[in-house]
Amino acid sequence: MKQINVGIVGYGVVGNGVARILEEKKELLIKKSGIQINLKKVFTRNWNKSFPYPLPEEKKAYSLEEITEDKDIDIVVELTGGIEFPYNLITECIKKGKHVVTANKALLAEKGKDVFLLAEEKGIRIGFEAAVAGGIPIIRALREGLVANSIERIYGILNGTTNYILTKMLKEKKDFNSVLKEAQELGYAEADPTLDINGTDAAHKIAILASLSYGGFIDFSGIYVEGIEKVNNLDISLGRELGYTLKLLAIAKSHNGEIEVRVHPTFLPSEHPLAKVDGVYNAVMVEGDSVGETMFYGKGAGSLPTASSVISDIVDIGKSIALGVGREIEVTSMNWEHKDLSLTKVSDFYTRYYLRFTVPDVTGVLARVAAVFAKYSISIAAVIQKEKVLSFTGEKKEKVVPLVILTHTASENNIQKAIKEIEQEKITVEKTVLIRVEDEEI
Amino acid sequence: MKQINVGIVGYGVVGNGVARILEEKKELLIKKSGIQINLKKVFTRNWNKSFPYPLPEEKKAYSLEEITEDKDIDIVVELTGGIEFPYNLITECIKKGKHVVTANKALLAEKGKDVFLLAEEKGIRIGFEAAVAGGIPIIRALREGLVANSIERIYGILNGTTNYILTKMLKEKKDFNSVLKEAQELGYAEADPTLDINGTDAAHKIAILASLSYGGFIDFSGIYVEGIEKVNNLDISLGRELGYTLKLLAIAKSHNGEIEVRVHPTFLPSEHPLAKVDGVYNAVMVEGDSVGETMFYGKGAGSLPTASSVISDIVDIGKSIALGVGREIEVTSMNWEHKDLSLTKVSDFYTRYYLRFTVPDVTGVLARVAAVFAKYSISIAAVIQKEKVLSFTGEKKEKVVPLVILTHTASENNIQKAIKEIEQEKITVEKTVLIRVEDEEI
Repeated sequence: MKQINVGIVGYGVVGNGVARILEEKKELLIKKSGIQINLKKVFTRNWNKSFPYPLPEEKKAYSLEEITEDKDIDIVVELTGGIEFPYNLITECIKKGKHVVTANKALLAEKGKDVFLLAEEKGIRIGFEAAVAGGIPIIRALREGLVANSIERIYGILNGTTNYILTKMLKEKKDFNSVLKEAQELGYAEADPTLDINGTDAAHKIAILASLSYGGFIDFSGIYVEGIEKVNNLDISLGRELGYTLKLLAIAKSHNGEIEVRVHPTFLPSEHPLAKVDGVYNAVMVEGDSVGETMFYGKGAGSLPTASSVISDIVDIGKSIALGVGREIEVTSMNWEHKDLSLTKVSDFYTRYYLRFTVPDVTGVLARVAAVFAKYSISIAAVIQKEKVLSFTGEKKEKVVPLVILTHTASENNIQKAIKEIEQEKITVEKTVLIRVEDEEI
Repeated sequence: MKQINVGIVGYGVVGNGVARILEEKKELLIKKSGIQINLKKVFTRNWNKSFPYPLPEEKKAYSLEEITEDKDIDIVVELTGGIEFPYNLITECIKKGKHVVTANKALLAEKGKDVFLLAEEKGIRIGFEAAVAGGIPIIRALREGLVANSIERIYGILNGTTNYILTKMLKEKKDFNSVLKEAQELGYAEADPTLDINGTDAAHKIAILASLSYGGFIDFSGIYVEGIEKVNNLDISLGRELGYTLKLLAIAKSHNGEIEVRVHPTFLPSEHPLAKVDGVYNAVMVEGDSVGETMFYGKGAGSLPTASSVISDIVDIGKSIALGVGREIEVTSMNWEHKDLSLTKVSDFYTRYYLRFTVPDVTGVLARVAAVFAKYSISIAAVIQKEKVLSFTGEKKEKVVPLVILTHTASENNIQKAIKEIEQEKITVEKTVLIRVEDEEI
């Protein structure tokens, strides 16, 4: 039986999980895959601390070269952080003929083009199932299970931290900052949660899914990203009244030869399966032209769920190695269209909008707002004007109340113009809240 | 570029979908897979009718031999019905060195052992992604994506017809027969819906998932199967009050070296993701020891969703053929444990129960029922006694009311003894309704 040797670089939460499964499930993996996977060496900078899954001395590497220079190591599992270090490591491995498995979404989203083109040139496989949605086998589903489909749309809840926060804000009516603090205490948010809450992490993941689905490379800096830092309980509850649930949604769509990729707080109909995905869970809805709507749900992070995906890649690549499969038809890169993908500009977005204006409670305000909407051809689907007093304004201390308008599908360009005009005309007394709505009305 | 030749036997709804996608997406499939798939011939008994996707004359086969004897055909797609005919066809193809793709769950569940062992012997691959849950790539997920997991549990909503009926019964409070009639008119239920509503279809599918997950063969006749024919609206609404939603659930679990496989109407907590799967959709929840709970959701039937899965198998097998991959490590069969699996007997089930007794509304009835429960060590979790009068009984025309008891986990054996005793003692005036409850309390 062919033995496949694996080296791991980075021995954090996921690395420990991978080592544990490779050791404890050796026999199961042999039975299921027909190959023997041997964890040969693990490198981490500091072995002088305790690990959830301690390794015997002979498996510890004290220099990176013990892995990169070892000709017996077939697959290198990269589980470090950042971008520069793993980029250098992975490109070195590729050049040395080692296949690579990585969970590093930032690297793949921001430097994937270089990595995948080099891998394709050298006939090397890059496994990245663990980079998106943890234990959910979504990469395999898109690449193989749904191969017969043109992908029309992907909606993803791809960041557990923000989904946990939004779920708590909705269910316990707590504000953003207190829920974030709670999430940090419970370990659901990192000490520095910036990349999670500002949407960058979800954007990395949707960039990867979009690249794979549409077969080309995406300029990460061109993706529209908005986080949940400014999300207000008032909007969560007003949205609920209108039948919508707020999620940090990662979206990829294809139309007119362009790919629309965006991440922002989004109202989904409360009956939508994704609206019901609560807490730290991830879910990805994929709509293909043949299969229709499918959804994949599971744990998006954590030691063993992520390790489960890392190992699925090790087995897959290991089987190819054992079979002596060349690279003739293996699509190693995501670039099956062999091109850069062109991204839709934010001003060209065309969707529905929830707008909350903060207005004095006087006659004629709604008429003035509606007139501006009409001027920009924006059609109104629903209005909520609440008696809830937010503050008082002006000399007469008029009551200030929220005025919520849900539009039909409109262009982002027109919406922004209308908001600007309404704010400039001082119909409103505070900055307008804009939340995009996805409900397939188009 | 390697050309893979495909023959289809059976040109119904799915066959038309497969032919359409193979023809219309030829270019996309070449780009994504690196191989060219050529639909060479299709056989059906009667070409003298109209088809949703009509074929040119040169692709029509008028005898089965035009496919089975054609040495150029690499893959035969079997899309006929029944068991004997496809069994003979598939075994003939295997012997002739042709790989097989099938959507025939009945065949695989009832004669899979013969088929897979023969295929393994001959080095032939059998693709069956389309046999379970239509377009959802659940076979690939279990086989590859979750390869690192010991599967602890599978819950499946695997039959769209029954899920449609139960959803309608719940939401519109209609009874079984009127909803079934409606479903037939809308094409969601077949003219003869027996195999759907009696649970056989779902049982075929869970047998396949269980075989694959636990790596052996299952004696189909040993699976416990109960359909939805006797489901009553009263139980659906009483269950709802207790916080449960009724689904026809297909279950596979492993414990103590045995596999428990069963299909029956089941109460799931209304907050469970599967409880929210409505209408004709299918969903499969898989719990693995590494990945935790994952769920896969999508269309379980229909021309293009099922064809999407058929084509994923054609591409997968086609790529192997093109690479000249032998059978050294390809697990062609589901039998990676190389054994028959031992099934748990129904009397050894151990779960929670919803029991509805029909009792006269007189003092002491609950005490008598509770005494029998105590005798058999069955612990009661909740009781609902309703004032709703079902009928009148006895000389005094006493009111007859429903008495619902939700138990904690208990053995099926004890439950059956308790029901028998309660019925024999004539505490009840009608047959007791028993519905199993799954809520992970164990």
